[in-house]
Amino acid sequence: MSGNTYGRLFTLTTFGESHGIALGAVVDGCPPGLSLTEADLQQDLDRRKPGTSKHTTQRKEPDAIKILSGVFEGKTTGTPIGLLIENTDQRSKDYSNIQDTYRPAHADYGYDQKYGFRDYRGGGRSSARETAMRVAAGAIAKKYLKEEFGVEIFGYLSQLGPIPLAFKDKSQIEQNAFFCADPDKVQQLDEYMTNLRKQQDSVGAQVSVVATGVIPGWGEPIFDRLDAEVAHAMMSINAVKGVEIGDGFAVVEQKGTEHRDEMTSAGFLTNHAGGIIGGISTGQDILVNIALKPTSSITTPGRSINRQAENIDVVTKGRHDPCVGIRAVPIAEAMLALVLMDHCMRHRAQNQGVQPPIKPIAGQAPQQG
Amino acid sequence: MSGNTYGRLFTLTTFGESHGIALGAVVDGCPPGLSLTEADLQQDLDRRKPGTSKHTTQRKEPDAIKILSGVFEGKTTGTPIGLLIENTDQRSKDYSNIQDTYRPAHADYGYDQKYGFRDYRGGGRSSARETAMRVAAGAIAKKYLKEEFGVEIFGYLSQLGPIPLAFKDKSQIEQNAFFCADPDKVQQLDEYMTNLRKQQDSVGAQVSVVATGVIPGWGEPIFDRLDAEVAHAMMSINAVKGVEIGDGFAVVEQKGTEHRDEMTSAGFLTNHAGGIIGGISTGQDILVNIALKPTSSITTPGRSINRQAENIDVVTKGRHDPCVGIRAVPIAEAMLALVLMDHCMRHRAQNQGVQPPIKPIAGQAPQQG
Amino acid sequence: MSGNTYGRLFTLTTFGESHGIALGAVVDGCPPGLSLTEADLQQDLDRRKPGTSKHTTQRKEPDAIKILSGVFEGKTTGTPIGLLIENTDQRSKDYSNIQDTYRPAHADYGYDQKYGFRDYRGGGRSSARETAMRVAAGAIAKKYLKEEFGVEIFGYLSQLGPIPLAFKDKSQIEQNAFFCADPDKVQQLDEYMTNLRKQQDSVGAQVSVVATGVIPGWGEPIFDRLDAEVAHAMMSINAVKGVEIGDGFAVVEQKGTEHRDEMTSAGFLTNHAGGIIGGISTGQDILVNIALKPTSSITTPGRSINRQAENIDVVTKGRHDPCVGIRAVPIAEAMLALVLMDHCMRHRAQNQGVQPPIKPIAGQAPQQG
Amino acid sequence: MSGNTYGRLFTLTTFGESHGIALGAVVDGCPPGLSLTEADLQQDLDRRKPGTSKHTTQRKEPDAIKILSGVFEGKTTGTPIGLLIENTDQRSKDYSNIQDTYRPAHADYGYDQKYGFRDYRGGGRSSARETAMRVAAGAIAKKYLKEEFGVEIFGYLSQLGPIPLAFKDKSQIEQNAFFCADPDKVQQLDEYMTNLRKQQDSVGAQVSVVATGVIPGWGEPIFDRLDAEVAHAMMSINAVKGVEIGDGFAVVEQKGTEHRDEMTSAGFLTNHAGGIIGGISTGQDILVNIALKPTSSITTPGRSINRQAENIDVVTKGRHDPCVGIRAVPIAEAMLALVLMDHCMRHRAQNQGVQPPIKPIAGQAPQQG
Repeated sequence: MSGNTYGRLFTLTTFGESHGIALGAVVDGCPPGLSLTEADLQQDLDRRKPGTSKHTTQRKEPDAIKILSGVFEGKTTGTPIGLLIENTDQRSKDYSNIQDTYRPAHADYGYDQKYGFRDYRGGGRSSARETAMRVAAGAIAKKYLKEEFGVEIFGYLSQLGPIPLAFKDKSQIEQNAFFCADPDKVQQLDEYMTNLRKQQDSVGAQVSVVATGVIPGWGEPIFDRLDAEVAHAMMSINAVKGVEIGDGFAVVEQKGTEHRDEMTSAGFLTNHAGGIIGGISTGQDILVNIALKPTSSITTPGRSINRQAENIDVVTKGRHDPCVGIRAVPIAEAMLALVLMDHCMRHRAQNQGVQPPIKPIAGQAPQQG
Repeated sequence: MSGNTYGRLFTLTTFGESHGIALGAVVDGCPPGLSLTEADLQQDLDRRKPGTSKHTTQRKEPDAIKILSGVFEGKTTGTPIGLLIENTDQRSKDYSNIQDTYRPAHADYGYDQKYGFRDYRGGGRSSARETAMRVAAGAIAKKYLKEEFGVEIFGYLSQLGPIPLAFKDKSQIEQNAFFCADPDKVQQLDEYMTNLRKQQDSVGAQVSVVATGVIPGWGEPIFDRLDAEVAHAMMSINAVKGVEIGDGFAVVEQKGTEHRDEMTSAGFLTNHAGGIIGGISTGQDILVNIALKPTSSITTPGRSINRQAENIDVVTKGRHDPCVGIRAVPIAEAMLALVLMDHCMRHRAQNQGVQPPIKPIAGQAPQQG
Repeated sequence: MSGNTYGRLFTLTTFGESHGIALGAVVDGCPPGLSLTEADLQQDLDRRKPGTSKHTTQRKEPDAIKILSGVFEGKTTGTPIGLLIENTDQRSKDYSNIQDTYRPAHADYGYDQKYGFRDYRGGGRSSARETAMRVAAGAIAKKYLKEEFGVEIFGYLSQLGPIPLAFKDKSQIEQNAFFCADPDKVQQLDEYMTNLRKQQDSVGAQVSVVATGVIPGWGEPIFDRLDAEVAHAMMSINAVKGVEIGDGFAVVEQKGTEHRDEMTSAGFLTNHAGGIIGGISTGQDILVNIALKPTSSITTPGRSINRQAENIDVVTKGRHDPCVGIRAVPIAEAMLALVLMDHCMRHRAQNQGVQPPIKPIAGQAPQQG
Repeated sequence: MSGNTYGRLFTLTTFGESHGIALGAVVDGCPPGLSLTEADLQQDLDRRKPGTSKHTTQRKEPDAIKILSGVFEGKTTGTPIGLLIENTDQRSKDYSNIQDTYRPAHADYGYDQKYGFRDYRGGGRSSARETAMRVAAGAIAKKYLKEEFGVEIFGYLSQLGPIPLAFKDKSQIEQNAFFCADPDKVQQLDEYMTNLRKQQDSVGAQVSVVATGVIPGWGEPIFDRLDAEVAHAMMSINAVKGVEIGDGFAVVEQKGTEHRDEMTSAGFLTNHAGGIIGGISTGQDILVNIALKPTSSITTPGRSINRQAENIDVVTKGRHDPCVGIRAVPIAEAMLALVLMDHCMRHRAQNQGVQPPIKPIAGQAPQQG
C-alpha cells in the first residue's frame, strides 16, 4: 500500500536507499521449476549499470546481485525469491550542505511534505538506484516469458533531445552506449552529449519498448487493462512524464478509417493499436513509447528553498548521467516484463483451459528499416 | 483481480454490460459523514450522457442513478455505497449479424481469445457504457475532495482532430457541447464534426484534466507514484492511447535548465512537472493530457474476420459518437478524482499527524489565456 | 480495504443494510463457461431463509435473487456477476426507541465509536442479513468446484447448547429444520428450543463443515495457508467466536505419536489434521468446526447505555432466531466454498502444469455413524 | 498472492528457507518518526530463540537481526524496512535420507503436490524458522502501538498437554522457560517435559494472547472483522489448529443472558466477547486462545511414503522442540500486534477525525488470580 510493491500475482517488493547498507527485493509468485542463476540477473543489471560509458555517471556500482532464497538446486521452488545488492560505494561523504536543501525537480520537497523526514543521502529512497532491483526482477520475468511462451522484450532509445533515432537495426542496439538501433546516428549522439556536458546541462529522451510473440487474451478489462498497467508501470520509472501505446498521441489527428487495424485470416494488416485493444492483447507486438525528462541533478545553479523556507541557490554536485533516458532502456524492458508476467498469471487463474473459437491470427512483425 | 475494481482504500467496483439488465457499482471506503444525494451524482452523469448534442450518439440513456446503500439520513455511513442504473434502452434488436463478427479496433477478437465467450450485444462489458459508473463514483470523490480539502477537478477538450483548442476561458467549458474552453473555436468544431459525419468517419481527440488546490505530499513513492496511478487510471478509459503529466512528451527535447521548476519561498516559478515530482504531489496544479483514438464504430466498411476465421467486410451500424473524446471529459475528471481520493486516504493512513518542517509554498495558478 | 470484499482472485463484494432498499453483491473472477441460473443460487438461499421453521425468525424474506450481469445465454462470461435482492419486508416501523441505544452484545456501540454514524434500522450493515449474499456467491463457487473438480461441501449442526449432535447420517441433514445429521435427536432439539423461547433466552451452537474430494496442493504457505483463510472466512460470520480445523483444541492434549496422520501408499490412515497440513490441502476431507454465540437479541432486559452515555435497560423486540447457529449452516458452507474457489484459482495461477512426483494418495472418507 | 505477505497497510513480506543463506523480510507502511533500533527487535527475537532452555531445540541460532533500510538517524522514514538474519548454523549435513521422504504431519507431501519441487533441507520454507521474521516485524508494531496508543500485548502458555495453566501472575511470565503465569506449575511442567523426552514423544499446547488499552472502533465490518483477521493471523502460525476469541467454544453452551456483556456508563461488566463485537474492537481487552498441535518431528518411527510412492518408516532426527507451543508465545504476540497495527491504520484512513457521540467507556482489566 506504501507503493513499494508491483504486481498482483507475480509481485516485486523493493527496499533500500541510494546510500544505505543494501538494496533488496522480494520477487513472489514465480512459478516453480524455472532454471535460475545469479548470472541470469546480472546480465541485465550490467546493461543498466552506470559507468559503462563516459555519458553515464562514473560512480562505480558493481551491483553484484545475490539470490538469498527461492532457488534450490538451480531451479525456482515457487517460494519467494529474496534478492540483495550490497552498496559498496557508500562514500562517507559530507551531506550537510544538502541536508536542509530542496533541490529543484527532485523529490526532496515532496518527501518532506509527506513524511516530515527524509534520508537526504543521494536522494535516499527516491533515487533511481532503486531501479536496479526492477531490472533484476524483470530478468526473471523475461526468462519465464521467453521459455514458457516465446515472448521476447527489447527496448531502444528512439529520441535523444532533438535527435530522433529510427528503429533501423535491432542487432545494433547492444553495440553502442546509447541503446541506439540506428548505427549512423551514434557519432552524432556522442557529439551532442559531449557538448551538453560542457554546457553543464542535461536533456530528455524517448525510449521505445517492444514485446514480440505475445499471446492474445492477456490483460483484464476495465481498470486493469493491459495498456493501463503498462502505463502505470512505465510512469513509475523515475523521470518518465509520458506514455504512449501504439500510435499514442498521433491518434488525436487520425481518422477512424485510418487508425483501425483491419484483420484478415492471415493476420492484422497494421498495428496502430500497439498490440492492445480493449485492454486485451491481440497477439500483435506490444509497442510502447515513454518520455523521460532531463536529469534534474545539474551543476548549473538553480533557485530553490531550504527547510527554513529561505531562498537559496542550489548546485547539485556529484556523478550524474546528463541523460537519464539512456539507462532507462533496460528498466523499461523490465517493467514491461513484470506487467506481462503478472498478466499471464492472472489470465491463467481465471481462463485456464478456455478454448477460443479460432486460433490466434498472425501478428505483424516489428518494422525495421 | 479481474480488473473490475479501481483503488485500494477508496474503491470502485463496477459490473454490468452495455445491453444487460443494469449497470451497477460498489463504492467502498467512503468516509462517514459526507452529505450525499442522488442528485450529486446525476449532475456529472448528465454531463457525460449521450444525446446532449447532435455530435454525440442519439441513444436515449436517462442514466438515472439510484443509491442502494451506504447513505442514511442524507449522509454516508462509512459502509459500501451500492449504485444502480437500470438499462431502459435495451432494444430487443437482432444481433445475429455481429454475433460472429470481430469488428476491427474493437475488443471483440481479444475477448473471444481470452474468455472463449462474449456478450456480443453492443460490445457487452467492453462498451464505454460502463464508464457511467465511473462518473457516478467520481462525483462522490470530487465532493469529498472539495469539501474536505478544497481540491477541485475540471477537464476540457484541448484538441479535436487537427484543431488545437487553447485553455482560454474556464467558464466557457460547460457552455458548449464540446467542453471547449476557447469560445472562438466552437463553430469550427461544429463544422468539422458535421463534415466528418458526412464522410462516415470518426476522429481522435485530446482531453486535458486539471486538479487545483492539491495538498502536497499525496502519492506513494516507487510503484504507486501519483503520476503512475494517474497514468493507469487514464489509460483505463476506453480509447485512450497516451497519457502525459505536465509537459509530457515535450520533455524529450527539453534541457535540464529549462525543465526544472525552480522554487522560491513565494512558490514555484513554473509547472513543467504538472504538479507531481518523484511521484508525490507538490501542491501545484496537477496537469494531465490524454489522447483518445477515433471511434471504432463507423459505417465505412472495413476488412475483418468472423468466428469461423473467414474474411469478411464489417460495417458497424448503430448510434455512435464520431468523436468519443468529447464525452471523455467527465470520465477523465472522474478518474483523476478517484486517484486523488484514494491517495489522500493512503497518505492519511501512514502519515497522519506528520509535521513537515515548512508550510506548503504556494502553487502556481492554471494559466488561462 | 473497508472489509466488504472477500477473496483475491474469486472475489465477493457485498453491500446493503438490513432494512435498506436492497442487498447486493458483485462476484468477480468467475471463470467463463459455467452454466448458471438464478435457480442455482436460490436453492441455497432458501436453505438459509428465515421463517422455514418455528425456531427461526418469522420475518418474511423471500430473498429472491436477481442476476444483473456476467451471465449471457445461460453461461458465465468471465465478467463480474452483479447480484441483487430487493428488501420487500422493510417495515416502515418506528426505530426511535433504539436509535440512541447501544444493545448489549451488538455492534451498535462499536459502529458508533468507529464511524460516528450508524444506520440503526435493524442493525443496518452489521445485521446477519448481509450473509444472504454470501450464500448466493457461495452457490456459484460450490457449483464450479463440483463441476470442475468434484469437490463437494456440506455442513451440519454438531451441537446445540448442551446437546451434542453426532454425524450419523448425511442424508438426514436436509430432512429437519436443524441441519441435524442425527435423526434421533431432532425431537430433543425441538423441545429444547420450545423451552428456550419460553425463557425468553437464546443459546449458542456448533456447526461443522466438510469439503470432500479436495485436490491436494491447494492453499498458500506462510500467511495465506488454507486453514488460515478458512479461519478468517469462518470468523467473519456473524456470532462466530471460535474455529477449529481437524481435531482443533483437542490437539492440546494429544501426543505427537497420536496426532500425526500416518500415510501409506493406499492413503492416509487418519485425519486428525482435518485435510490441511502446512497450510496446504492434503486431499483428505477438510474438517472445520465453528462456535456461534447465542443470539444477542433477546427479550429479557439487559443493562446498557445510550448515546448520551446514560445507563438504560434494553429489551430487543422483533423477530429473532433464538439460536443463530442453525441458519449458519449454509453460510458456513458458502464461506468454505469461497475459500476453496479462491485457492483453486490462486494455485492455478502459479502452479499450472506442475507435475508432482507421485499421484495423490487416497484420502479418508468422512466418518459416519 | 503467494501467501508471503501479511497485512494491507502495514505489511510484512517474508522470504527465506530454514537452511538457506538468510531469512529476510520487508516491513512496509510503517509511519515515519518512530524511534527504532536493532535492539528493539532483538529483544523479542531472543524470547523466541531456540536453545534458551533444555525443553526447546538445542540448535544455535543467534538470530542477529540487521535493519537494512527504512531507518535513518534512529527513526523510521516511512520507507520500507528491510530486515535480514543470516543463517549461521547451516550445517552442511547430508539430507539424502529425507530428500525423497514425506514425513508424516509435515508439509512435505503437500508441497510436492503443489509445486512439484521442494527444498527438503530442514523443511525449507515450511519450517517454523520463518516465524523469526514475524517476531521482528511484530516488535515494530508493538512499539508503535504502545508509544502511539498505549496498547500493550502479551502472551502466556495457558495449557501444556493435560496441564492447565492459570493466569495468576503476569509478572512471572518471563521468569520461566515456559511463559507460564502460574509459578506453582513450573516444576510440574519441567517434569512433564523431561518425561516426554524420554518417551520420544511430543505434546500440544494452548497459548493465550491479550491486548490491553485497545482503542474502540478498530476493525472493519463484514469480511475483515478484527476477530476474523486475528483468526487468520493466528491460524497462519505453524502448528495452530484452533482459535478462540473471548469465551470461544464455551459459547456453544452459553445462554444469551449469560454471554452478553452488559454495559454501564462506568464500563463493561464482563468480557465474554473478548474485546471484539461485530468485528469491531470495544476497547475491552482482546482475548485470544490458540491450540497448537504436538511437534511433528519426533524420533518414534512412523509409517509414511516416499517420492516413489513406496511405504516406508520415518524417524525424524534432529534438534526439535518437544512442544512447539512454548516458543509460539512471542510469535502469537507478534501476529496480534501485526493485526492491530494494520487495523489502526485502516481505521485512520477512513475515519480520521470522526467524533463518536460519547467517549469510550472503560474496559475491564484482565483478570489475574
